[in-house]
Amino acid sequence: MRAYAELSPSPRTIMTPGPVEVDPRVLRALSYPILGQFDPEFTALMNDTMEMLREVFRTTNEWAYPVDGTSRSGIEAVLASLIEPGDRVLIPIYGRFGHLLHEIAERCGGRAVTMEKEWGAVFDQAEVIEAIRRERPNLVAIVHGETSTGRVQPLDAIGRACREADALLVVDAVATLGGVPVETDAWCLDAVIGGTQKCLSVPSGMAPVTYNERAERKILARKRVERGLRAPGQPNVEPAEGRRPIQSNYLDLAQLQDYWSPARLNHHTEMTSMLYGLREGLRLALNEGLEERFARHRLHESALVAGLSAMGVALYGDPSCKLPVVTCVEIPDGLDGESVRAMLLRLFNIEIASSFGPLKGRIWRIGTMGYSCRRDNVLHLLGAFEAVLLRHGVKLPAGAALQAALDVYEEG
Amino acid sequence: MRAYAELSPSPRTIMTPGPVEVDPRVLRALSYPILGQFDPEFTALMNDTMEMLREVFRTTNEWAYPVDGTSRSGIEAVLASLIEPGDRVLIPIYGRFGHLLHEIAERCGGRAVTMEKEWGAVFDQAEVIEAIRRERPNLVAIVHGETSTGRVQPLDAIGRACREADALLVVDAVATLGGVPVETDAWCLDAVIGGTQKCLSVPSGMAPVTYNERAERKILARKRVERGLRAPGQPNVEPAEGRRPIQSNYLDLAQLQDYWSPARLNHHTEMTSMLYGLREGLRLALNEGLEERFARHRLHESALVAGLSAMGVALYGDPSCKLPVVTCVEIPDGLDGESVRAMLLRLFNIEIASSFGPLKGRIWRIGTMGYSCRRDNVLHLLGAFEAVLLRHGVKLPAGAALQAALDVYEEG
Repeated sequence: MRAYAELSPSPRTIMTPGPVEVDPRVLRALSYPILGQFDPEFTALMNDTMEMLREVFRTTNEWAYPVDGTSRSGIEAVLASLIEPGDRVLIPIYGRFGHLLHEIAERCGGRAVTMEKEWGAVFDQAEVIEAIRRERPNLVAIVHGETSTGRVQPLDAIGRACREADALLVVDAVATLGGVPVETDAWCLDAVIGGTQKCLSVPSGMAPVTYNERAERKILARKRVERGLRAPGQPNVEPAEGRRPIQSNYLDLAQLQDYWSPARLNHHTEMTSMLYGLREGLRLALNEGLEERFARHRLHESALVAGLSAMGVALYGDPSCKLPVVTCVEIPDGLDGESVRAMLLRLFNIEIASSFGPLKGRIWRIGTMGYSCRRDNVLHLLGAFEAVLLRHGVKLPAGAALQAALDVYEEG
Repeated sequence: MRAYAELSPSPRTIMTPGPVEVDPRVLRALSYPILGQFDPEFTALMNDTMEMLREVFRTTNEWAYPVDGTSRSGIEAVLASLIEPGDRVLIPIYGRFGHLLHEIAERCGGRAVTMEKEWGAVFDQAEVIEAIRRERPNLVAIVHGETSTGRVQPLDAIGRACREADALLVVDAVATLGGVPVETDAWCLDAVIGGTQKCLSVPSGMAPVTYNERAERKILARKRVERGLRAPGQPNVEPAEGRRPIQSNYLDLAQLQDYWSPARLNHHTEMTSMLYGLREGLRLALNEGLEERFARHRLHESALVAGLSAMGVALYGDPSCKLPVVTCVEIPDGLDGESVRAMLLRLFNIEIASSFGPLKGRIWRIGTMGYSCRRDNVLHLLGAFEAVLLRHGVKLPAGAALQAALDVYEEG
């Protein structure tokens, strides 16, 4: 038997598009002794979490709870529960995570119709609405904040068009929830998936979701109560005539909502410690105030962008649809982007990200999310980034970046 | 906006079949600041975890890693990855969690063949082997430790019979891993799923799995690399001729093993804090020593059983296949079992469990798992249980339970 070292992770300044630094108060919550899953004290914490999620999602939906898995488990739970085999699913794609929606929709048996936008831009809502009217999909799935390209897709008109066309609208708001406005009710979004490890600054491990009655009707039509839980002498619950059961058991929203309802019908064993962390992260976000939190994210974005611009590096993508919480920087020609990232991590304990697919090796991505979105982090990053670029032979006006950022903070 | 109270969970003595109390050193690990998912320090911790899981599963399998979800996510990941639609799946059922295997196998498109044993007993291995030879299944799925009835199923001969019949054997060892011997290699188990929140005393949230090359071959034949990750100019990876892709993206072991391999092909964002907790829980288990740990579980079971017997309550089920880490007690006629449980929780801060389906209202279930499996907990429980039964009018020899348990500890 090998001896394994005690856990002792180095402190990091995490300026990626997630996972980001966790608020110390959330870390503390993770360390509290656990309660049993049906302990009344614990179910009260579950109910608190639902109430707080409704506030953060800006919804009056009955259903707002976490799926027990990382963000993509929430996406798959929503799509697997809402897409019946053969359903037409319209997926506008403008980056990597749109491709993920396509992938998952197909695995759920959906007949996908995709439309693609060059990376770095987003769709004009009118284009999407026209496609909805033309294609008559059962469901539209779209990303709100695309971290692979650092863009944010306006959605306020698409939801209404989906209602008119009797399509359900599913939105991946993993990157935006808690950092950028996500207006579930005002924008007529039928189901929304958020992330924990980004603007909420809770570790990865849960996927908050919300959905309305339109979505719930479809879910309930496909409901099936699992074997081993059916009460003796009671009729089985099976899908309605001609409907197909949900293909996943673990990611079955019909069963999950029973577990989160007062009936507490046993499904999985709730992730006690993660629930503590999520509840604390939501509590901190609501105590800060959502509007104040969005303003904080905009302020530090401004300082970061001012600093990078003063340094003379080029920002990637259409500025009119820039995602406030992710800033993409073009890697100067001839420079090894990974060498810059490695030096930042090794010598400064700072992590920034690269990107995927067509953008691999072309851009760096800098996140300003949640607890990582702080003045000291932005200033530390700008100073270190300048030093590392100079060390790599990039010509730039030394000292300008921090002065430009400090100007923003003095004005702010 | 409502003000939400600060988190302040009451201390509990958790004597259920899970989730159980978490070792304070694991709680501390959960509270450490996070690392990025591709930070070399973090991937080293992932690799440590794989090595430790191999030791705990007693295997030389290459693949041993956690699925990011609660235990049933691991069960579904294994079954969804190994069962192709139309596959014949033999499921011997002797309690609730056998029904769960049946449920999930059907949702994966398997043609299930079940055999049932009355609750409270287990199968003679020869019966299962005969069924394997008769039914020629592609896969056999069986529970090792059935917490709903407190029984443990011998498996050492079934694995070899599966090899002869060219069937894969999948074992749900959620309740046993780390508390009762699970011999993956010696018993010829092709895929095994463990639990964190039971004998490993880590909070619910991850599902350790291991599988061998026989299982991997089937998984790889169905592999499909997801859209958005396919490298430009390279051929797509699609399932082999005539094979069906894995229906889940989140629970796709082909993708998960790429993420856990040195290639680190991006899939989900690993649950950083849960991984810290799992690694620490495994480290503590291996530092204690597996044999020593099994002996500790047997010792405290003996003391508990001696105490309960001295009290005069009846134990449920066939003693020859009793699961050492769960002790089931028959609720005396006319007594309200829930009232006893509620008083234990309200006045003594002790949690014990009820059961499911045909056993609902008929038995209590007392767990002695992981960090909860301690002398002080057993003694505290016996004293409190006696007091609560007396308070409910049960006639029993006052004081005898603790004396009997103390006798066991003095001998031990």
